[in-house]
Amino acid sequence: ISSKLPNTGTTIFSVMSALANEYKAVNLGQGFPDYPMNEALVAKVNEAMQAGFNQYAPMQGYLPLREVLAEKVHFLYGTTINPDTQITITPGGTYGIYTSLTTVLQPGDEVIIFEPAYDSYVPNVLVNGAIPILIELKFPDYKIDWEEVRRKITPRTKFIMLNTPHNPTGAVLGESDVRQLRSIVEGTNIFILSDEVYEHLIYDNIPHQSILRYPDLLERSFVTFSFGKLYHCTGWKMGYCISSPALMQEFRKVHQYNCFSCHTPSQVALAGFLKDKDSYLQLSGFMQAKRDYFHRLMSGTRFSPMPSYGSYFQCYQYDRISEEGDADFAVRITKEFGVATVPVSAFYQSGRDHKVIRFCFAKKEETLEMAVERLVKV
Amino acid sequence: ISSKLPNTGTTIFSVMSALANEYKAVNLGQGFPDYPMNEALVAKVNEAMQAGFNQYAPMQGYLPLREVLAEKVHFLYGTTINPDTQITITPGGTYGIYTSLTTVLQPGDEVIIFEPAYDSYVPNVLVNGAIPILIELKFPDYKIDWEEVRRKITPRTKFIMLNTPHNPTGAVLGESDVRQLRSIVEGTNIFILSDEVYEHLIYDNIPHQSILRYPDLLERSFVTFSFGKLYHCTGWKMGYCISSPALMQEFRKVHQYNCFSCHTPSQVALAGFLKDKDSYLQLSGFMQAKRDYFHRLMSGTRFSPMPSYGSYFQCYQYDRISEEGDADFAVRITKEFGVATVPVSAFYQSGRDHKVIRFCFAKKEETLEMAVERLVKV
Ligand SMILES: CSCCC(=O)C(=O)O
Ligand SMILES: CSCCC(=O)C(=O)O
Repeated sequence: ISSKLPNTGTTIFSVMSALANEYKAVNLGQGFPDYPMNEALVAKVNEAMQAGFNQYAPMQGYLPLREVLAEKVHFLYGTTINPDTQITITPGGTYGIYTSLTTVLQPGDEVIIFEPAYDSYVPNVLVNGAIPILIELKFPDYKIDWEEVRRKITPRTKFIMLNTPHNPTGAVLGESDVRQLRSIVEGTNIFILSDEVYEHLIYDNIPHQSILRYPDLLERSFVTFSFGKLYHCTGWKMGYCISSPALMQEFRKVHQYNCFSCHTPSQVALAGFLKDKDSYLQLSGFMQAKRDYFHRLMSGTRFSPMPSYGSYFQCYQYDRISEEGDADFAVRITKEFGVATVPVSAFYQSGRDHKVIRFCFAKKEETLEMAVERLVKV
Repeated sequence: ISSKLPNTGTTIFSVMSALANEYKAVNLGQGFPDYPMNEALVAKVNEAMQAGFNQYAPMQGYLPLREVLAEKVHFLYGTTINPDTQITITPGGTYGIYTSLTTVLQPGDEVIIFEPAYDSYVPNVLVNGAIPILIELKFPDYKIDWEEVRRKITPRTKFIMLNTPHNPTGAVLGESDVRQLRSIVEGTNIFILSDEVYEHLIYDNIPHQSILRYPDLLERSFVTFSFGKLYHCTGWKMGYCISSPALMQEFRKVHQYNCFSCHTPSQVALAGFLKDKDSYLQLSGFMQAKRDYFHRLMSGTRFSPMPSYGSYFQCYQYDRISEEGDADFAVRITKEFGVATVPVSAFYQSGRDHKVIRFCFAKKEETLEMAVERLVKV
């Protein structure tokens, strides 16, 4: 077999989680919560199974769930979305990204990806025979250099991939970014993929610049979301994708023969759960309290916090501690100090090293305390 | 957008299920049961959720589930499989097929597909820029013409796709088919994709010719399975893929950035449930009773049964009833007589029409009775 992804290893999240288990480290690496999820939501899944919702859902998703999502979008962003033609339920946000790219990309197409980037983006482009065009976010505030974007646009540019709030840095798009984006794509055939799986996990009352706010941009966009990230059940693998009717029709052609449909009982449960707007309106406050608590604890260590506005990650520089590369440092503190993190160099194809590691703070207070008790010794 | 699948419409299963709902027809179309699934398995999922198994499973799947699957394979087929390197849990059988093809196919590769074929195969090949080479199974017994296979092999042949028991016809591979297959692929670089989602649903004590029986063939094969089909929970979207360590390593590179991992609580539940061998050993008898009951009922109609040995489908010819094409006939009996089926012409790219429709008999006795009460009038 001649590998389609010869340079792709095991995803860093699996690697660090396995290492965390091996060394019984506190795992602040891979992005998942360690506190219990909402009991009422679990109960609803059980009810759905008991009620017999165990067979194929419609390929595009359970209609009441798509309807409540359309209401949510209208309520939050003022945009009217047709649940029949613009929303598809997906088995997770990662799958939404994969399927969006596969829907459109042809061999030789170029895709603009900002680094550091969630590690699925580049392989997803490569597996479609397309070419990742990498642009580094400006260090240390991780803003987009729109002039560089303009310079890198070619007639083969097919996608610009965005991620707000951003994994791993917690950077968020501002209104001026949206204006720049619009002025670049207007009049072109460039598509936008906006990965918004950390929607709601944005702090200090900053508004989330969802592409869903901008119907003119949504026309050319796929916007991907995750229930797992919001409702503390990353293992349920549930999310959704919103697009224009024309693009969604093509997306569904791929989806119907990739996974076909998603876990039915979860869809039925989420349709009920999301009717209560508090299920998402309280998320920002809930997670900001965790972030603030983690910041306070970490102020007693020699790690230096980086600017961060959203997601459930917080990056820290360790340049006052060590000159090791990110990966070596992350492995060492897992083994020697018992705290697993993710090296930010893993989010660059080049392995670019800014002496930065990423912590996931979506954890119980005790977990954060135990981690920092160990990190003060570093 | 220039469509990557310009000739692909909505999958026939969605179309017929939607029509069934619209006309309140008895739905013997899309392949899913209408009787309740096993309560103990539902209870196990609930227990897993309650116990906190709601975060990401390992990308390759929950280890105890992979282990019990390896035991099952050894028990049934005598082959030793390494659960670490040869099994990956997938969100359904369809996803396993998609991901296997995407792992290997490069633009211009050729894939041998036997028609009638499950309707995802051809689009899965096309979306990878590869070329489906279609071979018709011999009508009316739907056997493989191995001489024709030999003639259609070229230096670009990358895959031969098998499906046993076969959807839609219920044909099954025999030992002589396996010998023919071996003699064709030996010494070549041709891969095999064996879709065995109807494993166990094979009747009259015929042995299932799983590729897993043949370690020499497994070296070059992806073999896909479905828990949804076996355990009457098609909406759970759970399955698995077995391959050689070398191929599985490549499969996981794609899988980890497609869906990444699967529904954790179901995996935990299935790991427990599968320990009881009866959970799968009683399936053949259970479903054969349904098939036999359906056959008896249908003998009072003017439909003529086709040979069938497995799956939960049974095809009938309606040439004594009508000269309409399969699709027109299927739509008409849904609308006029209130019974939804699937036209077998939908399983041919050419729309080839043998006056055959497919019934799913994985239904309650009352459902089968109600359907046949209506069909006797046709
Ligand atoms: C499949 S891992 C998903 C992304 C994530 O959780 C992370 O960045 O840690
Ligand atoms: C996703 S539909 C799966 C196949 C099936 O059930 C059918 O052939 O009816």
